[in-house]
Amino acid sequence: MTKCTILNNPITYDEPMVQVKNQTQKLQWNVQPSDFSKLCSNPIRKIVDNLKIPTTSTKTLIPLSLGDPTVFGNLHCPDVLVQAIVRNTRSMQHNGYIHSAGSEVARAAIAQHFGSIRAPLTMDDIIIASGCSGAIEIALQGLVNPGDNILLPKPGFPLYQALCEAHKVECRFYNLIPENNWEADLDHMQVLVDDNTKAILVNNPSNPCGSVYSKPHLKDILALAEVNKIPIIADEIYGDMVFGSNVFFPIATLTKTVPVIAVSGLAKQFLIPGWRVGWIMVHDRNNILKDVRAAYFKLSQNVLGANSLVQSTIPDVLTPVPGSAEEQSLLDFKKRYFSTLEENAKFTIQALARIPGLEVVIPQGAMYAMVKVRIDILTKIKDDFGLTQKLLDQESVFVLPGQCFGVTNYFRIVFSAPHEVLADAYIRLAEFCRRHQ
Amino acid sequence: MTKCTILNNPITYDEPMVQVKNQTQKLQWNVQPSDFSKLCSNPIRKIVDNLKIPTTSTKTLIPLSLGDPTVFGNLHCPDVLVQAIVRNTRSMQHNGYIHSAGSEVARAAIAQHFGSIRAPLTMDDIIIASGCSGAIEIALQGLVNPGDNILLPKPGFPLYQALCEAHKVECRFYNLIPENNWEADLDHMQVLVDDNTKAILVNNPSNPCGSVYSKPHLKDILALAEVNKIPIIADEIYGDMVFGSNVFFPIATLTKTVPVIAVSGLAKQFLIPGWRVGWIMVHDRNNILKDVRAAYFKLSQNVLGANSLVQSTIPDVLTPVPGSAEEQSLLDFKKRYFSTLEENAKFTIQALARIPGLEVVIPQGAMYAMVKVRIDILTKIKDDFGLTQKLLDQESVFVLPGQCFGVTNYFRIVFSAPHEVLADAYIRLAEFCRRHQ
Repeated sequence: MTKCTILNNPITYDEPMVQVKNQTQKLQWNVQPSDFSKLCSNPIRKIVDNLKIPTTSTKTLIPLSLGDPTVFGNLHCPDVLVQAIVRNTRSMQHNGYIHSAGSEVARAAIAQHFGSIRAPLTMDDIIIASGCSGAIEIALQGLVNPGDNILLPKPGFPLYQALCEAHKVECRFYNLIPENNWEADLDHMQVLVDDNTKAILVNNPSNPCGSVYSKPHLKDILALAEVNKIPIIADEIYGDMVFGSNVFFPIATLTKTVPVIAVSGLAKQFLIPGWRVGWIMVHDRNNILKDVRAAYFKLSQNVLGANSLVQSTIPDVLTPVPGSAEEQSLLDFKKRYFSTLEENAKFTIQALARIPGLEVVIPQGAMYAMVKVRIDILTKIKDDFGLTQKLLDQESVFVLPGQCFGVTNYFRIVFSAPHEVLADAYIRLAEFCRRHQ
Repeated sequence: MTKCTILNNPITYDEPMVQVKNQTQKLQWNVQPSDFSKLCSNPIRKIVDNLKIPTTSTKTLIPLSLGDPTVFGNLHCPDVLVQAIVRNTRSMQHNGYIHSAGSEVARAAIAQHFGSIRAPLTMDDIIIASGCSGAIEIALQGLVNPGDNILLPKPGFPLYQALCEAHKVECRFYNLIPENNWEADLDHMQVLVDDNTKAILVNNPSNPCGSVYSKPHLKDILALAEVNKIPIIADEIYGDMVFGSNVFFPIATLTKTVPVIAVSGLAKQFLIPGWRVGWIMVHDRNNILKDVRAAYFKLSQNVLGANSLVQSTIPDVLTPVPGSAEEQSLLDFKKRYFSTLEENAKFTIQALARIPGLEVVIPQGAMYAMVKVRIDILTKIKDDFGLTQKLLDQESVFVLPGQCFGVTNYFRIVFSAPHEVLADAYIRLAEFCRRHQ
């Protein structure tokens, strides 16, 4: 190709096609999307897009499908957070660029709040990202290569699979055992391990299962990781959101040897999923993840982190002054919020226990219950997808089929809705199942 | 590998190493970062990290290096935006998940504000992302494959190169001609095109050049794109930020045939770079980018978009009610802000014109000036990097060497600082050059 002679003779709208000399002029546009984009998909969408939302129903649609506790307007973020946003917006001090891995004060507050003697953290262990999803993406991108594999829970949050597939990482799904409160099948997990296994992802408390793992079970998982020398990626976004006598143990507090890449965020605990502030916490006492940690900081530079204004409020919500009114207000908020979820969990268990054809696995935390569909009892219900579609058609109740999370003949209920909404939904669900006996 | 017998015998901290039967136990941890992370780098950091910031200077450091107009506290985001954030935070209506490509009201407002008869937009053309950087990343990720090439301006914003290198896309740099107000060398651009060229990136107004392209020049670029059938990626984040008689023409308004993927955001025009809300605008009248547009929407699902609270304010700042007090307030804000930048540009030109050894290329917009370093006149100055380091050492004035943007023997000044700060900096710069004659 040589000099383009048209360049001093710009086209205008109404001129005929310009004449080009001394070069090949292409006649057709052909712009294709990237191969990478073809690997990207949202597994939930693939399934949900096949569901038909009824448009003629006389009943109000009750969506118990979306893992967003703010949708019904019954649960609000803490007042301390609102005040901090208002104050910091007016201050004009938090509008500029901050460190790509997050502001130092925010990272220090996260390290202080989540660190402990058993699992110490400094701000150099924290990488703030665009939501917990963004943290998971960086956690994976910095660790795995195409052709590697990673162990993922089944059932599990579909983003893990979506991100792995986008980066050509093989997903190996270890079974969770519903009869055992969705504990991991460790024999199965071990069978899946090979030399290309780069991480074991553990999601506790679990979406979609609502399970909370005991200390012994977490130690068993750590023992397996230790033997195989495979780091843990711990998705603990629902940490502390546990019911009754269940206790949340951050997995990093139970090991001195296994490196743990934990991810969390403000979304669920502070009821602001749309605000997109999450983080990685690198627990690495023995310097095993030294280069991976450096990789995470480098990756955070690709697209500058999370909103500076929200980051500026992290000390307010994570490290309030001990004994202050703000601390008390936050404690009251959490107590109120978590006890609402616990009451809803109990109500869900009680309501569904009375419905023949359904079996709810007792949720121990988070905001989810997985419900088994007894297709041997229910008539004209082919599988979980069939139930979901018919339940939508006949009762305008929307739950997600287990297939969205990798298992059939379960569905997931999000029970963060107000009591009266849940009551209405469960009456409709009971009616539905009665008709399908 | 078979059953792991240790699993019912969990380790505790003080036990000796567990015994494992019937399987290979790895003895050493070896966790390496991904190949992808090794491709990621920040070209500015590579250079700036080699600069030594003086710690013993008696002079206050004047950083004219960072492209963030909020650092000196003299420029504040509009009051309409502050009020909208406060109102929408208190409303509790904007805390939940929104569409991964952005809320519909925000996308509709962007389409309305930036669309025109010559370049119509609907909300289906808009993909909101985590800042303009996030928009650029999606714009590239959805379009280019490893081994493809893309034409980038030189000098240019280093993120383009960083993102291309991370995705194994070849960067081909077309020269901008300083003697011609940094217009693109179109002959050079044409020579760089081959069958693997997937896009021409045009940054107007330009960072680092502060140039604003004329309508004829933009039409020349479009003609070249049309002949070669290569879409334009237009980084127009500094759109409207122009001085004097210069006019900003969105490149999409000058063509009916060339598909244009424009990126912009709230960062610079509304003085909130840390808030991370940017977007892609797909200008595609002839359906050439149909599949690419779908790819962009898919990619937005990987990591759910930008902060919902900031998105909720986009209609307030982009589409205020005509004739309202808010509209007037925003107009006043822009007038004040842009005229401050224009005065600073004039002051910069005047001050530097008097300094032998420096030649400033007149900035026409944005907030940047590129200054040529006459190493033939200045003594003991090896190149732009040497000048930057010595200027830091001797005068505590921090500018970025041209090498950060791909050219030698220039440096970039960010002139958004208050007048008195600029005056101080330019006196020091004059002193410095006087000593180096």
